Amino acid sequence: MSSYAVGIDIGGTNTKFGIVDRNGHIIEQDRMASNEHEDVSEYIDELISKLNPMIERAGGKQNFAGIGVGAPNGNYYTGTIEYAPNLKWKGIIPIARMFTEKTGLKTQLTNDANAAAVGEMMYGCARGMKHFIVITLGTGVGSGIVIDGKILLGHDGFAGELGHTIIRHDGRMHKGTGMKGSLEAYASATGVRETALELLTQYPEQESLLRDYSINELTSHSVYECAMKGDKIANEIFEFTGQVLGEALANFVMFSSPEAIILFGGLTKAGDLIMNPTRKAMEENLLQIFQNKVKLMFSELKEADAAILGASALVWE
Amino acid sequence: MSSYAVGIDIGGTNTKFGIVDRNGHIIEQDRMASNEHEDVSEYIDELISKLNPMIERAGGKQNFAGIGVGAPNGNYYTGTIEYAPNLKWKGIIPIARMFTEKTGLKTQLTNDANAAAVGEMMYGCARGMKHFIVITLGTGVGSGIVIDGKILLGHDGFAGELGHTIIRHDGRMHKGTGMKGSLEAYASATGVRETALELLTQYPEQESLLRDYSINELTSHSVYECAMKGDKIANEIFEFTGQVLGEALANFVMFSSPEAIILFGGLTKAGDLIMNPTRKAMEENLLQIFQNKVKLMFSELKEADAAILGASALVWE
Repeated sequence: MSSYAVGIDIGGTNTKFGIVDRNGHIIEQDRMASNEHEDVSEYIDELISKLNPMIERAGGKQNFAGIGVGAPNGNYYTGTIEYAPNLKWKGIIPIARMFTEKTGLKTQLTNDANAAAVGEMMYGCARGMKHFIVITLGTGVGSGIVIDGKILLGHDGFAGELGHTIIRHDGRMHKGTGMKGSLEAYASATGVRETALELLTQYPEQESLLRDYSINELTSHSVYECAMKGDKIANEIFEFTGQVLGEALANFVMFSSPEAIILFGGLTKAGDLIMNPTRKAMEENLLQIFQNKVKLMFSELKEADAAILGASALVWE
Repeated sequence: MSSYAVGIDIGGTNTKFGIVDRNGHIIEQDRMASNEHEDVSEYIDELISKLNPMIERAGGKQNFAGIGVGAPNGNYYTGTIEYAPNLKWKGIIPIARMFTEKTGLKTQLTNDANAAAVGEMMYGCARGMKHFIVITLGTGVGSGIVIDGKILLGHDGFAGELGHTIIRHDGRMHKGTGMKGSLEAYASATGVRETALELLTQYPEQESLLRDYSINELTSHSVYECAMKGDKIANEIFEFTGQVLGEALANFVMFSSPEAIILFGGLTKAGDLIMNPTRKAMEENLLQIFQNKVKLMFSELKEADAAILGASALVWE
């Protein structure tokens, strides 16, 4: 029986990869830039050149069950990355086949948020759960939905794009998709920054530590730091973000009635600042039969680990 | 092998019931009022007294595999109707157990929209489909979601309350739930009537055939009749209703990526008047990877038949 799997998480900026055993221990890991190769074939060659010594140290390919890859717009059924807005390679990229051809190892692909959900189910706080949703709050907003213990893929493999659902009719324009009022336009790091700029413009008279940052420097992280110092506008930004997110979560609960919703990614570092308004808005927007039932929690997996673990777990699934 | 199943559809006003064979033929059917018994036990007694002669004519109980019941807020896991706002019996009603005790037949319960979805899957236009959503557009808006060929029940059996998802933040108040901006407040027969009253008030100068109806007489059906005669406001009412519905459908597609969405119930009699704006708004609010893929269609089953067929099919499932 093969002992190891390779886990690869392809993000817009970085690719994280590692060797994982069946118990979810990362034996070795590394990272490289995702966006330095115009040609996806050259990107894969560099990645494999970094993976090969790791594989050798783990006893060679015969010890490996395969490669699991998480990537934005990754399709489980076809093994292709399709029109990913945050990646350099456009169109349809048959990445699973390319990995298999270049390594001889079976390769399983899914989108990055689905990989995170698999990681939670096998090694995180969703162990033993059959119905839950993972929401990734990073540069964008992603989602991995688990129904009856299986990742929801839908008819064509693209299910679970909850970040693009509309939560504010005719609301804020999303620069990447052109859609108005999608969850991602509010509850992503980009959305938090935009809310900050809006509120600072809306209340020009109100003092705020956020005004000490240049517009370029202002990030969701600076909003967090100012909020922790008691800055009123910074706190209001999290209140608003949590309210929009909580309303969206209520809609998701009324769709699939999950046991838990697990929040994952950079924005969760804000802790109670984001959790409290989110939970309040979710409960307020739920039909009675759903109230006070759904566990809303933060992922307990380290972000870099979870991405690799989740991707590798695709191999064992 | 048992040849027949009883199908019972409990609606807010009427209960429809019948004897169905394995091929989905309704051998015999009847109906009675749902709301004339304060005591649910007396209601069941009357229903059974009407069912018994039908069962005898079909060869007696030994020919029956069981009873399938569709009811608002019906829970598949527990066999109970829980806090159904449109039924006379309040609290938690163990209706499946009561039917079994009084008839000796195995009884399977689910909510009415789930029963409709089972009916579509076994006998309607969803035959052969693994992923689809049925939206029932009647007095209220219900939904039955099929994932991988199975009704989505969720953690506690209450999944699929899509009529209560919020589609207009801070929007129209739903008198039954107290929630603001839910789909049901717009896309139900009640919602269409309310849109009519709003538009007639908003444009007091504009002539409309709808002004010939008293406020009490004004229904979604009168709006349909006026729209067919070319009435401008009546047409605008369907445009608006379809737009709200289409936006909501886009959100549902980005959740579960179904092959088809099947619209069912009274409002579908409006045909293209409701289909065209719904389809347009759905496509406009979909992420590119979902566009022009989802079949949006009307149910081809007769409404009374579908309810009985779907409920009876629970027995064979």
